[in-house]
Amino acid sequence: MNDKVEPVTAAIMVVGDEILSGRTKDRNIGYIAEYLTGIGIDVCEVRVVPDIEAEIVAAVNALRARYTYVFSTGGIGPTHDDITADSIAAAFGVTIDVDPRARAMLLERIPEAELNEARLRMARIPAGAELVANPVSKAPGFWIGNVIVMAGVPTIMQAMLDEVAPKLKTGIRMLSETIPANAKEGDVGGPLRAIAQAHPEVTIGSYPFIGEDGRPNTNLVVRSRDPEKLAAAMDEVRRMVAEVAVRLAS
Amino acid sequence: MNDKVEPVTAAIMVVGDEILSGRTKDRNIGYIAEYLTGIGIDVCEVRVVPDIEAEIVAAVNALRARYTYVFSTGGIGPTHDDITADSIAAAFGVTIDVDPRARAMLLERIPEAELNEARLRMARIPAGAELVANPVSKAPGFWIGNVIVMAGVPTIMQAMLDEVAPKLKTGIRMLSETIPANAKEGDVGGPLRAIAQAHPEVTIGSYPFIGEDGRPNTNLVVRSRDPEKLAAAMDEVRRMVAEVAVRLAS
Repeated sequence: MNDKVEPVTAAIMVVGDEILSGRTKDRNIGYIAEYLTGIGIDVCEVRVVPDIEAEIVAAVNALRARYTYVFSTGGIGPTHDDITADSIAAAFGVTIDVDPRARAMLLERIPEAELNEARLRMARIPAGAELVANPVSKAPGFWIGNVIVMAGVPTIMQAMLDEVAPKLKTGIRMLSETIPANAKEGDVGGPLRAIAQAHPEVTIGSYPFIGEDGRPNTNLVVRSRDPEKLAAAMDEVRRMVAEVAVRLAS
Repeated sequence: MNDKVEPVTAAIMVVGDEILSGRTKDRNIGYIAEYLTGIGIDVCEVRVVPDIEAEIVAAVNALRARYTYVFSTGGIGPTHDDITADSIAAAFGVTIDVDPRARAMLLERIPEAELNEARLRMARIPAGAELVANPVSKAPGFWIGNVIVMAGVPTIMQAMLDEVAPKLKTGIRMLSETIPANAKEGDVGGPLRAIAQAHPEVTIGSYPFIGEDGRPNTNLVVRSRDPEKLAAAMDEVRRMVAEVAVRLAS
């Protein structure tokens, strides 16, 4: 394994008052996080911001300076509260106008007579951005610098992510193995800490849950990019789980 | 209505590598957002941060300086990856140790012989914090300054929020009314913008969805703290929806 490969990092930015009010429950964060993890991109931060240009600009500028990619969802529809495209243009200090390529995409689905000013808003793209095709409803997303701007509707966002994924720089995939401890979290916390300290190059997580038998249980998750280091730590976790079982049974 | 009442604002901070990896899908953000909106507290921002002390410290310090309250979930269990309490202590520059009140709460559920070092971690509380009772599994959350630290397990977090809510300063509740446009978003975008501009003291959102008849539809949501202003804008939205229906039928 080449330890010199730099990790590829990402942040997710969700734009929308409807998420912050709780009216709409976000379904994109978990999807994008799992998707990117699966292709070797580490999601390091998520922010949900309101439909306020200054807030979007501040968030995207903070995130794009820090991570390899920023994935934005929401706020690219046809109504007055859809201000993500304009805000991204402001963040990059570029102009924004109706993009002929995006307009042509809209015309694949919308008759020209119905392409009113509201719908044309969906063709407003910051100068210099690449388009991200929308196979569901045509109105495109876009990619500018290291920021990828997608729709908020989950089916459309997912299709856009499929469009973008083959073009992304990816890292070495984070591997993970999970083992149920068959014990309460507090029963494994001590020995688990010792294993974590002895294996600083793996990440060990501990997640309590209620089992199907109604008893408290704990999933132990060991993560590493290196399969050998993962296996070594996992061996110790398995041994510890067996020892705890003996101890609890006695 | 007293326009001088200051809005009460909040941010949500979710701590956890398991959310960022997509392994666990967050169910707390939407719940807290809806709950707080319902009692007159505006959620203005959400951040999800990893199990890294410096990241938690930076996020909580940015958020607590800006909003009336910060609600944190996750990272207060008994294992080595539960570092929220220590990170909050670091953010406030206070010490942290086993709190006798919290230890007593743990002993209500855990026999003293089983109160090992791992479980005692759940009684580590930053100096000066008030405890937040946990009627589900006893291990408490806490409240320090304007930061409320709760568990990540949804049932426990929800019980803690119920404990905290009566003590929160609340604002005038945001009222909202929803009307389906019976039209595509692009059909109402123009007139909706005009209404939004004529009623700057209400917020108007537009949310596309696919109706039960399989046709694209749009929910229009008007929000205001002032019932009269809400009613006036809502009247115009209703009239507009009726006009659009006539136009689309012709």
